[in-house]
Amino acid sequence: MTRQDRLGLSLVVEPGDPRLRDLLLTYEPGEVMAAILGGHRLGDVTIPDSWIERGTNLARAAESAAARARASGMRWITPGDKEWPVRLSDLDHVEPLHGATGAPIGLWVRGTGHLGEMCQQSVAIVGARDCTTYGAECASELAADCSDAGWTVISGAAYGVDGCAHRGAFLMDRPTAGVLACGADIDYPRSHGALIARIAEGGVIVSEQAPGERPMKGRFLSRNRIIAALTGGTVVIEAALRSGSLNTLNWADQLGRTTMALPGPVTSRQSTGVHEAVRAGKAVLVTSGREVVAELSGMGAETEERPPLPLTQFDRLPPAAQRTLDGLEWSTPQRVPQIASAVRLSAREVRAALDLLERRGLATRAGAEWMLARRADVG
Amino acid sequence: MTRQDRLGLSLVVEPGDPRLRDLLLTYEPGEVMAAILGGHRLGDVTIPDSWIERGTNLARAAESAAARARASGMRWITPGDKEWPVRLSDLDHVEPLHGATGAPIGLWVRGTGHLGEMCQQSVAIVGARDCTTYGAECASELAADCSDAGWTVISGAAYGVDGCAHRGAFLMDRPTAGVLACGADIDYPRSHGALIARIAEGGVIVSEQAPGERPMKGRFLSRNRIIAALTGGTVVIEAALRSGSLNTLNWADQLGRTTMALPGPVTSRQSTGVHEAVRAGKAVLVTSGREVVAELSGMGAETEERPPLPLTQFDRLPPAAQRTLDGLEWSTPQRVPQIASAVRLSAREVRAALDLLERRGLATRAGAEWMLARRADVG
Repeated sequence: MTRQDRLGLSLVVEPGDPRLRDLLLTYEPGEVMAAILGGHRLGDVTIPDSWIERGTNLARAAESAAARARASGMRWITPGDKEWPVRLSDLDHVEPLHGATGAPIGLWVRGTGHLGEMCQQSVAIVGARDCTTYGAECASELAADCSDAGWTVISGAAYGVDGCAHRGAFLMDRPTAGVLACGADIDYPRSHGALIARIAEGGVIVSEQAPGERPMKGRFLSRNRIIAALTGGTVVIEAALRSGSLNTLNWADQLGRTTMALPGPVTSRQSTGVHEAVRAGKAVLVTSGREVVAELSGMGAETEERPPLPLTQFDRLPPAAQRTLDGLEWSTPQRVPQIASAVRLSAREVRAALDLLERRGLATRAGAEWMLARRADVG
Repeated sequence: MTRQDRLGLSLVVEPGDPRLRDLLLTYEPGEVMAAILGGHRLGDVTIPDSWIERGTNLARAAESAAARARASGMRWITPGDKEWPVRLSDLDHVEPLHGATGAPIGLWVRGTGHLGEMCQQSVAIVGARDCTTYGAECASELAADCSDAGWTVISGAAYGVDGCAHRGAFLMDRPTAGVLACGADIDYPRSHGALIARIAEGGVIVSEQAPGERPMKGRFLSRNRIIAALTGGTVVIEAALRSGSLNTLNWADQLGRTTMALPGPVTSRQSTGVHEAVRAGKAVLVTSGREVVAELSGMGAETEERPPLPLTQFDRLPPAAQRTLDGLEWSTPQRVPQIASAVRLSAREVRAALDLLERRGLATRAGAEWMLARRADVG
């Protein structure tokens, strides 16, 4: 019954409406639905007119949604279902951003993936629609590396960074999830129809909007809270100062998820918002899938595994030998006192150092004079 | 006398030798000099052989330095001189990095600038010798902007970022200071002779190395501590993982100066070290001269003045009007109940919103039907 009541509520109330979130903290979905249909108060709360108006059309809306869902093979999932990602409930405790908050009342899902399982180890990769080729390449590579490391990539199937993130997962033959701002049966943007179909093969397309609902400005913003909440962390790649991707980052921040930002040239308008987020302490800087995975695993910059820097032959010399080597010339042979004076070591120290340098093939002796050995590449 | 003793010490002991720093915390320069020349202990400290050996050549070294200094118009300054930058003494309390620490015993200065005054409001801009054109442009622009804001740019006169930083100051006709790893009379790199001469016009070329001393690996590293100590903060632009500029950043960090890093594409090897520094919390990310000046002024990202984001016409609408606008179409006229149902507002709310949108020229009425006004560009 609750599944059905939740479906009704999702058709009557704009998903993400904070007033519904507030009511559901006290009342069961069925109680709220009854109040809407009966047009009466619930405790001391007046049901908004708009809900009541839409309630009068509920039967028709439900029929239309069901028909569309059948036609495109979608399922309706709600809290308690096996496929329901439990971490979505974190949203019930976050203040509204741009007028929306709360866990989705339910989700429409299309595709062969298992949403709940896919989310368990997942990362959101989002960014500018009008990204540069730099942003596109970074998104695809980052997504491929995260996917390869076993982290599901979740994004918004939009132009630019989003699309590249999904495609990066495809490169590794890993499932990916797309969360839409319109009904999950609608290809938006239209030319991403093939991409969206490809995401649904093995992965999932998800929306809290009913089938057939079209995307609107506000719905992109409330959709972003779902992307942030489904994942362990959000990476933003290329975002100008007023960018929806920064909104996703804000949601992740509010939710206590890991917030990450991939830098770019400071000369690129598309990276302005990203750099700003790092400066404001809203995101940690990441440059690779390895670093993203480290952050998501709670290891961060302090403890992540780094390939050790190769030591050069110079590094492996004791300090006196390094200084002596610095004092040798390619072309001019010098005697020990000359070298000692130049590098400010004692003659004894220089003699010991030259001995070592000769054994390592770095210095050559000609009588009492010394010079650098040919091809002493000391890096 | 102390000036003379300091000069003597600088000729006998490799500048930056921590053992000299330790002795000068207890003894006067004259006492140390006497112990070197006399070859005897100072308290319970044994004078190193290399110092005693070089002490035997002191007269000749001093004569040669004096001749070279006269020829190139250099002056010798020490603590207590008006031109001496007092903040250099911070170096006396820093642990050695790569075998060097301590304030310089004295400095050789060439040029018409006043070093002490130039340092009072100054910033170090350093980076890769083999920088990309991106790094070169950023260095030049950042230096120009800092100079223009009244901050003296100090760098190392090297190829790449250093040279571009000095040239950025020239663009604004502001003096700049170059700190060399060799004698201040030597053009290093050789092809930077004209740049170095230009720095000395109005600005200064500085070194703790005696005139005629050549650059050596270790001297670049110990030189970096002076660049960091002379300035209020260091910005690093493009640095690979093993870069001398990161060494300057480390010095600035040890000295409690402001440490800053300008990001670049993550695909560029030259920015690896820069990003690493930000990730490790060793530097704050900066993208412009304005941000550098804010950090140096102790304001940081929290309080720096930002140009306010322009509000679009859409932003200035009340929420119900924004949602109603979202529900209007370009081409299909709709009646109020239709719109209300699509955007999930009550008919009354939609009517009020349409009224406002019509007054603002964003919605057009045709009988009882509404659509978006032509050219309602709502950003």
